[in-house]
Amino acid sequence: MVELWTITESMLNPEQLSHMETVFTQGNGYLGTRGAFEERYPNEQRTTFVHGIFDDVPVVFTELVNFPDWTEVEILIKGERFNLSEGELLSYERHLDMHSGLLSRRVRWRSPEGRTSQLKFDRFASLDNIHLACLRVEITPEDYEGSIEFRTGLSSEVDNLCFKHWQRLQQGVDHDHIWLEVRTRKSQITAGMAARIMVEAEGKVETQTWDVEGHPTIAVKTHALAGKRISIEKTVAIFTDREGTDPLSRASATLTGLPSPAWDSLWKAHVRCWEEEWRRSDVIIEGDDEAQLAVRFSIYHLLIAAPRSDECVNIGAKTLSGHGYRGHSFWDTEIFMLPVFSYARPEIARNLLSYRYHNLAGAREKASENGFQGAQYPWESAGDGREVTPTWVPNQKDRTKVIRIWTGDIEIHISSDIAFAVWQYWQVSQDHVFLADRGVEIILETARFWASRLEWDQERKLYFLRDVIGPDEYHEHVDNNAYTNYFARWHLRKAIYLANWLRELDPQQAADLLQRLQITDETLKRWKTISDQIYCPIDKTTGLIEQFEGYFQHKDVDLAGMEPRKESVQSLMGIEGVNATQVLKQPDVMMLMYLLSDEFDQATIRQNFDYYTPRTDLTFGSSLGPSIQAIMAARLGEQDQAYENFMRAARADLGDVRGNAADGIHGASAGGIWQAVVFGFAGLQVNDEGWTVTPSLPPHWKRLAFKFDWRGEEVSIDIPGKKEG
Amino acid sequence: MVELWTITESMLNPEQLSHMETVFTQGNGYLGTRGAFEERYPNEQRTTFVHGIFDDVPVVFTELVNFPDWTEVEILIKGERFNLSEGELLSYERHLDMHSGLLSRRVRWRSPEGRTSQLKFDRFASLDNIHLACLRVEITPEDYEGSIEFRTGLSSEVDNLCFKHWQRLQQGVDHDHIWLEVRTRKSQITAGMAARIMVEAEGKVETQTWDVEGHPTIAVKTHALAGKRISIEKTVAIFTDREGTDPLSRASATLTGLPSPAWDSLWKAHVRCWEEEWRRSDVIIEGDDEAQLAVRFSIYHLLIAAPRSDECVNIGAKTLSGHGYRGHSFWDTEIFMLPVFSYARPEIARNLLSYRYHNLAGAREKASENGFQGAQYPWESAGDGREVTPTWVPNQKDRTKVIRIWTGDIEIHISSDIAFAVWQYWQVSQDHVFLADRGVEIILETARFWASRLEWDQERKLYFLRDVIGPDEYHEHVDNNAYTNYFARWHLRKAIYLANWLRELDPQQAADLLQRLQITDETLKRWKTISDQIYCPIDKTTGLIEQFEGYFQHKDVDLAGMEPRKESVQSLMGIEGVNATQVLKQPDVMMLMYLLSDEFDQATIRQNFDYYTPRTDLTFGSSLGPSIQAIMAARLGEQDQAYENFMRAARADLGDVRGNAADGIHGASAGGIWQAVVFGFAGLQVNDEGWTVTPSLPPHWKRLAFKFDWRGEEVSIDIPGKKEG
Repeated sequence: MVELWTITESMLNPEQLSHMETVFTQGNGYLGTRGAFEERYPNEQRTTFVHGIFDDVPVVFTELVNFPDWTEVEILIKGERFNLSEGELLSYERHLDMHSGLLSRRVRWRSPEGRTSQLKFDRFASLDNIHLACLRVEITPEDYEGSIEFRTGLSSEVDNLCFKHWQRLQQGVDHDHIWLEVRTRKSQITAGMAARIMVEAEGKVETQTWDVEGHPTIAVKTHALAGKRISIEKTVAIFTDREGTDPLSRASATLTGLPSPAWDSLWKAHVRCWEEEWRRSDVIIEGDDEAQLAVRFSIYHLLIAAPRSDECVNIGAKTLSGHGYRGHSFWDTEIFMLPVFSYARPEIARNLLSYRYHNLAGAREKASENGFQGAQYPWESAGDGREVTPTWVPNQKDRTKVIRIWTGDIEIHISSDIAFAVWQYWQVSQDHVFLADRGVEIILETARFWASRLEWDQERKLYFLRDVIGPDEYHEHVDNNAYTNYFARWHLRKAIYLANWLRELDPQQAADLLQRLQITDETLKRWKTISDQIYCPIDKTTGLIEQFEGYFQHKDVDLAGMEPRKESVQSLMGIEGVNATQVLKQPDVMMLMYLLSDEFDQATIRQNFDYYTPRTDLTFGSSLGPSIQAIMAARLGEQDQAYENFMRAARADLGDVRGNAADGIHGASAGGIWQAVVFGFAGLQVNDEGWTVTPSLPPHWKRLAFKFDWRGEEVSIDIPGKKEG
Repeated sequence: MVELWTITESMLNPEQLSHMETVFTQGNGYLGTRGAFEERYPNEQRTTFVHGIFDDVPVVFTELVNFPDWTEVEILIKGERFNLSEGELLSYERHLDMHSGLLSRRVRWRSPEGRTSQLKFDRFASLDNIHLACLRVEITPEDYEGSIEFRTGLSSEVDNLCFKHWQRLQQGVDHDHIWLEVRTRKSQITAGMAARIMVEAEGKVETQTWDVEGHPTIAVKTHALAGKRISIEKTVAIFTDREGTDPLSRASATLTGLPSPAWDSLWKAHVRCWEEEWRRSDVIIEGDDEAQLAVRFSIYHLLIAAPRSDECVNIGAKTLSGHGYRGHSFWDTEIFMLPVFSYARPEIARNLLSYRYHNLAGAREKASENGFQGAQYPWESAGDGREVTPTWVPNQKDRTKVIRIWTGDIEIHISSDIAFAVWQYWQVSQDHVFLADRGVEIILETARFWASRLEWDQERKLYFLRDVIGPDEYHEHVDNNAYTNYFARWHLRKAIYLANWLRELDPQQAADLLQRLQITDETLKRWKTISDQIYCPIDKTTGLIEQFEGYFQHKDVDLAGMEPRKESVQSLMGIEGVNATQVLKQPDVMMLMYLLSDEFDQATIRQNFDYYTPRTDLTFGSSLGPSIQAIMAARLGEQDQAYENFMRAARADLGDVRGNAADGIHGASAGGIWQAVVFGFAGLQVNDEGWTVTPSLPPHWKRLAFKFDWRGEEVSIDIPGKKEG
């Protein structure tokens, strides 16, 4: 069943260039490199990102910086440049082996002048030593002899959608080594890179070193004979001063310690790491190859983006695989991706949650700027945890207008989403040390925010949250969004619980923390009072929860009647248009019932599911929707709908069903796919006492198996499908 | 008196790097290259612009594209990189010889390892063949022998304030030639460049060709002996497909035809062209070296930016010398720079006015989009004459706010400014062909705009222009700006006159044109009626003209009392703050009286001069102010004030008195300096009958001499100063 580990591209489609670059992204939790070809093409998005390397840019404030390119290799065959858009492509295949993180390309190509070559390209980003990457190119002439030249370097001539971030500090070339030191213009982060080039050929090899400003290059040339293979190996070391001083020296020293050639030994260590990754993280689905491949693809992309040794970075909405959302992180991490790690890889979950802890300063700054207490997490977060949601973006249709983006101002549920993730991680891991040292502070500081943000309505004698955006972003500036209000109540209650929990666990630590945060018994009492009076609506008769005040008065649109659609309802009706309807971009009340499932009985969930489902834009709304819909459908026994939405999510990036996979992997959708399988089809649920599994597999599945880490112990779940016949 | 042709920098000041790059810009009316050093430095703004090469960019819509760099030369002395920020600078001098357009640098430098060298850098952009540029570097070792290496290429790795515009098409390196073809990303303009490198050395020269992507480079190395000079010559050819197909072939072919070395022959032809330029355009001031140098500096910068063979480009507000205003053109061209050409170089004036003629389509589009008839010229104009004024720019102080730029919407006097420039050019040149074929159409189409833009006020029985910005941009959204209203009246009257003029000159051509523009006798009659009823206020008692309705009710601020200031009144009081006062950014009513001087008697001018002068921010307001103030002061016999403001303008770029010379030459101020000398101190005025000179030289001037072209004949003016003693 080798193929169920492999994403294969068997035909070159120039129009899919950028989409496939996203799909074929490689990484090791430190860096991510898109699957651009070694030789260059117009319209490519040749990109490497390194976690935490942000720099200022207009309009979107800050972005992950496209790192100097390490993948370029230009090949000249008797002076003819290897280029798939010329000559004749006799055969082509590209594979991503997700089991080992290897990207391979096999090409048989006839040059415009008629020379036929076999070419083989392999590369990987080491998971054993995350500062190393390695690539290898082999070429075998079939029907000619003559010079073959490889040119490869380290190029700081890269950009982010045309914008340049790097200043050059130093560089050099020396026989088989090249090196480069650069610095980001505003954030002043220094990166050091070094590469070593090794040629294997029977003939004499001539080497030239091209010390061109910003792009040190080695050019090696040899005489090739028909049928004789020539290969080049490039080993690259990458450091930044986020990890320590003098990254260039560290890069050079790392290379010096390697054997020559280095591939075999690096590869062995790398593969061992990947084996362990998959041993712990794999999800096996038998009887449904597409689902199997899709779930592994999702896990693969989460694993390559997951910081293993850095607790000051987060995963962006598009992981490290594309320029979409500029590397900014959203609730996508905590609500969609984090569960995968909390259950399967708790040490990574701890790193990600620690990022939020270390960035409390940014959240405190945001709360204070807005006139609130405590910590208000940014809707979009980057290097230092300050709010970096763009505020105004150009209106492409009318140059005299700009569009105000409100999420950074009023989509405030993010603070509770993070608290929820802390709680969930603790529930699964029982990591008391993290909770005591970091988690409680996150939850208490954000509780202080809620207590100051909630508004007392004198008339209705209730606390309100006015002017917010809920998960359904089709509706902006709403009052009392149910998701947000219920979560604020949940949040304050958990905060009180945890303050007392810490007092029991470690009275001194509790006293110190509460004093530092200026939380007294009075505060906790007040929180209790407030939490009991937050407006958390539910219709006693119908069981329906109104998504926000007045939602039921909005225009009811027959969404089914708009099929077949190829666009979101928002792009069909406009921002104002859809805002006036009941159409949702993604589940909102259902999202609440998914996350705080304890608070709702089955009948209530069913009522709301039946009401909101036909009103939700599951095809072209948010990519975050289908997986959640799949889970809720599975829990309600709606198997067809569960599977349909699961596959909708599964195809988001592999099938590019939304047409924007070129911008990067939909990280939240990837996490949602895992959740749909584990929480939906397997029906895994945890509570204070333990965990339960309530399987509801799609009928054609023959087996579903996965592992998770239950409070330090590995639990294996293996669910058989329905017997055939 | 050689020094009065030479701008000298005798000390290297790293903080003045960008300012001096602007000052030392070279050009030939096709390209402009800033005076960045051959070797690279951080914070340099290494820039070459070529007229008409615009490309899309966020926020400011379009900008002149920084051309691939042709000036880079890296020098390695026994492996040590020549770099003025290291080692010891024993002597340093840089000269711009404005008489020949030669930029030279002489350096004596001791390397960190103690090797002393003499270096000499010279370069020019050929005025004889505007597609050619040439540079030469000489190095003489004083106290060592060993390898000297020069590395030089053509680099497409350039950016506009971090933004990249170029895609690579092809490139190559072949012994002593390099070439590069690139294309702008959105506007799809192709540029082809080729360079030839020649070394003169006694020893053997080793050449390497480095064909690095986007940056083809030649590296030449030789063994140098103490006291023996080694030199390298680089000749560069530059073409774009704006001039014809296959620019790369044309560049290569141009180089092929040159002798080797090429410097001497190119230099001779180049110098001959500059001699003729200065013969026609020089202004001689004796008795005031600073003024002499400043006026030549202004003329030099206008001449190197002036398109001699292209009537589809305009001069940007910052010429071709910097990124300020992104190469966009304003009224700065027609009102401030154009007179220099209309009087001294009419063929250039005709090119510039033809740019407006060829871009009538953009102006028609703007009028039509705004619901008006005819043609409304854009406030900021670039490649195709559409409106490219930025509409919204980020507020650097508050990320949640954006600033609306209104000039592109409502600073509508530009259409009359262009009409005025057509009229002025014709008055001086009597170029009936241009006027009949192009000028009349410009004036009639813009007259149609005015006729539709003017609003009838039923109550006051007058035509109004509401919601405009006049020349004084401290006041936005004003009604009945006097400058704009008086000019609209002037404009309609001249349009009627010219319609009849063309009917007399060529009835058939007139009939065709008027029919095409749908202008009938009725139209002309209506224009007459409208023009007689435009609200053009003047206080009969005091002679004062109110700058706009309600201006006199604005708060009167004691500007003198705010001295000493180091900022504009706007930055001190804020946009809203200054808007509420009577403080002007630049002359507005006085500007009107300067341009339409026929319409006002001396007493009225004096009254308004006395009122508005103390209310005008002449130090840190607009750079367009001081020269106009100087002229009006000179005309009124206020010699001290005239000279003070003249020198204020004269120092704008040489002295960087406004602190923004790094962004490029203040082109309008350069034109204003010439006007202050010629129209102010010499008092040259023309009318239908002829010209008059009414000198009013600063007392210490011993002579003022200049030429101008009066209807095809060269007129020499030579005014002696006051006799000494």
